[in-house]
Amino acid sequence: MTKIVFFGDNSDIPKLVALARAQYPDLQVYTEDDPGALDAEVAACWRPEHGALARFPRLRLIHAIAAGVDNILEDPMLPPLPICRVAAPDLSAGMSEFVLWSVLLFHRNLDQVLMNQRRHHWHRVDQEPASSRTVGILGLGTLGTHVARTLFHHGYRVRGWSRQPKQIANVRSYAGADELDAFLAGSDILVCLLPLTGETQGILDRKLLGKLPRGAALVHCGRGGHLVSEDVLGLVREGHLRGAVLDVFEAEPLDPASPLWDEPNIYVTPHIASANSIQSILDQISENVRRLHAGEALENRVDPQRGY
Amino acid sequence: MTKIVFFGDNSDIPKLVALARAQYPDLQVYTEDDPGALDAEVAACWRPEHGALARFPRLRLIHAIAAGVDNILEDPMLPPLPICRVAAPDLSAGMSEFVLWSVLLFHRNLDQVLMNQRRHHWHRVDQEPASSRTVGILGLGTLGTHVARTLFHHGYRVRGWSRQPKQIANVRSYAGADELDAFLAGSDILVCLLPLTGETQGILDRKLLGKLPRGAALVHCGRGGHLVSEDVLGLVREGHLRGAVLDVFEAEPLDPASPLWDEPNIYVTPHIASANSIQSILDQISENVRRLHAGEALENRVDPQRGY
Repeated sequence: MTKIVFFGDNSDIPKLVALARAQYPDLQVYTEDDPGALDAEVAACWRPEHGALARFPRLRLIHAIAAGVDNILEDPMLPPLPICRVAAPDLSAGMSEFVLWSVLLFHRNLDQVLMNQRRHHWHRVDQEPASSRTVGILGLGTLGTHVARTLFHHGYRVRGWSRQPKQIANVRSYAGADELDAFLAGSDILVCLLPLTGETQGILDRKLLGKLPRGAALVHCGRGGHLVSEDVLGLVREGHLRGAVLDVFEAEPLDPASPLWDEPNIYVTPHIASANSIQSILDQISENVRRLHAGEALENRVDPQRGY
Repeated sequence: MTKIVFFGDNSDIPKLVALARAQYPDLQVYTEDDPGALDAEVAACWRPEHGALARFPRLRLIHAIAAGVDNILEDPMLPPLPICRVAAPDLSAGMSEFVLWSVLLFHRNLDQVLMNQRRHHWHRVDQEPASSRTVGILGLGTLGTHVARTLFHHGYRVRGWSRQPKQIANVRSYAGADELDAFLAGSDILVCLLPLTGETQGILDRKLLGKLPRGAALVHCGRGGHLVSEDVLGLVREGHLRGAVLDVFEAEPLDPASPLWDEPNIYVTPHIASANSIQSILDQISENVRRLHAGEALENRVDPQRGY
């Protein structure tokens, strides 16, 4: 029996707890306030409060319940333990679906069609093949690579930018600060799938987005901390960006008073791009608990220096 | 030199004429009013007026500039000549893109998200894997088969209905009137890609759509004549249908006074689902002109009895 505590302000937590109790009799499942939770060896968490993880003296493993771990790494009292994250096939599939929907929205001019509907205006917008569009992907990790392959499969020209050069079939690789401008200049649709690190904080600002060709579109499925909302809003209003699908924000939920909601060419989606199922999250955590006990290498382990 | 006349009320016609003149010196290209057009051996047309084709005494081939030929076959003075239609890979690719976008809209609950945005309402809608949805495709011709394969590739469960049983890998086949009800009862999202014939006229009515499970969605990319708009509108308002993407209508352009425009769960798109490029249409017509002269079998020839 491994003692595991689930905690964090996320509606998935109660679902994970219920499913773990139902399906994994080898796990002794606690929530934060349970007596006995302090003996937990594994913490499965979402945006833990600073210092929260340090309260568990027997902890051996910290497991994120999602792909992003920036909200764990920023804890100044973070215990020096292995940290793992979730990076499942169905996370990639869900992300690819979301990005593909967003890319099709712009490529097929469906954004204009949705707008025209409000005005009862029938206008057969131009249609061009997918090969007429270059999609640039910021970040070629597990998700970025899967998304790149999906987009190529659908006929788009695909390029990607990452810290180090990547070899992915049919994806033109750009790397490092030196090649960022050239990467941006040729991207008709920019997809952000970067991890959030000190270097990428606030990266989606006027300086970077201004280097896209006029009329480019943004699909942001990275982390809220990448986004400088007012810059995106300004660039959309000026027409430099034709539009943006934004799934993550500096603060979530997005303030009901935010001007993003009413901007005609901005699509606000509530952090739903990567649709990992509860089952898949739980299965991955359970597999790492097994590996922890068997002394095997953990899956999807985070490098705290690198930040992902 | 083959004399070919392009005509019909469609904005693609002038583009086809210009491209044909620029690229195909073996074609003598006419528009309807050109002197000499009456000697045309080939007519490439869109919705010809009744009797229009009978005015060309030397005609040997009638070529549609799109996939649908119902608007040609309904001409009571139609000359008894071979009729061909356009059915290109890029038509299939464009159709698959459009259907995939529409299926994702419903599967990923993006229809709710778009609605919530208008109310500034942040709500993380449920997300389930594609395998949780069964997409039923009415019509398994070239387009329907391509769409079915694309949807299966993305993880959906796919079933199809056609007049005769079809063998398509991973697509459950239903055929004929006897199996229509069972097909409908298990379709969460219904995609119409039927040809328009006497049998399928008005098929998307309350009787058929009422057999879908409550909360099903409709994606209509067939022909306008399939649709009974007021039935779809009623079923959406009653909540039997969660929504519909409608690309084709009984009369086009859709009347600005139509109640479809303002119905929150209905997406009106202006007949843009199948985005064949001008180049591809022209290349196919030209290939059939070559075959006509070489005495070879024509491609994509229509069976007037069957209607497609």
